[in-house]
Amino acid sequence: MDLSRELRYHVTMVAPKPSRTPIDPHSCSIIGAVDALGDVWSILVLRELFLGIRRFNDIQGDLGISRSVLADRLARLVELGVVRTAPYQEPGDRVRHEYRPTRKGVGLLPLLVTLKTWGDEYLNLGVETVRITERESGEDVRLEFRTPSGKQVQPNQLVAQQIPPAVGAGVRRKR
Amino acid sequence: MDLSRELRYHVTMVAPKPSRTPIDPHSCSIIGAVDALGDVWSILVLRELFLGIRRFNDIQGDLGISRSVLADRLARLVELGVVRTAPYQEPGDRVRHEYRPTRKGVGLLPLLVTLKTWGDEYLNLGVETVRITERESGEDVRLEFRTPSGKQVQPNQLVAQQIPPAVGAGVRRKR
Repeated sequence: MDLSRELRYHVTMVAPKPSRTPIDPHSCSIIGAVDALGDVWSILVLRELFLGIRRFNDIQGDLGISRSVLADRLARLVELGVVRTAPYQEPGDRVRHEYRPTRKGVGLLPLLVTLKTWGDEYLNLGVETVRITERESGEDVRLEFRTPSGKQVQPNQLVAQQIPPAVGAGVRRKR
Repeated sequence: MDLSRELRYHVTMVAPKPSRTPIDPHSCSIIGAVDALGDVWSILVLRELFLGIRRFNDIQGDLGISRSVLADRLARLVELGVVRTAPYQEPGDRVRHEYRPTRKGVGLLPLLVTLKTWGDEYLNLGVETVRITERESGEDVRLEFRTPSGKQVQPNQLVAQQIPPAVGAGVRRKR
């Protein structure tokens, strides 16, 4: 995955007049999303689930996270609706539950792909440790910025902009 | 941005045999990237910078973060090479420094876009608070999964897979 190689240095930024009031999590989807996830453990737990490591003991052993922290984060993710539980039963054992990403959880998959791509590019691990491929072709899959009509956009052609509440409420800015 | 509407429920997951040894940050690009960022404040600081809020006091006022935590996170991001400082001077004032994302920092922009898209879709804020557009056309820009040849891949066609160290070291799996 070589998305990062395509990244250019400059992103055009349109600066709003910075407010002096701390932003409420409910006032911005990015801050709200970060607030909902809580901390980076949630991201690491999602990594496990997307890699097919779905059972409490396996996740706990793999991440080396404490059982209480893992239980807390899984409960948070279930409550948030990004993870659901599904029963399973090993022969001779009682029914247990494993954890699976929901559709809402799959919406966070690009987080993992971004971290993978960025880590592969910049952390000099020397090896690729995770692969994201298309099932049918086995080809590597990467994230690209595209317009709704499918045109690829390089990061240096992006404008990130806050919408002031008065404008954001209802009307979409036209050009 | 309606990327999330295209997300399907199932992602095929290929489960490796889970290891019982906690994963070292150096053994996985995703864990390494999370470890490098440290915590979610780093993500929120990057949000500010991408939105063009680049000065210490402005970021501090906007996020409502303590000065010491912000100074620590900015220093970490600078050390990590995702943020650089640039001098500026207001008339009659001393030279100060503002913070800008580097090329390495721009590689993390998809994190913000994913959180924005996910937040817009699922947090029911009722308004879009951040827009990511193409400068030239003003069109909204979203993230899509694509193969190197440009074919769009839906999330339910993805396979996320850990590469065992022995295989990952050197050889790329062929199909």
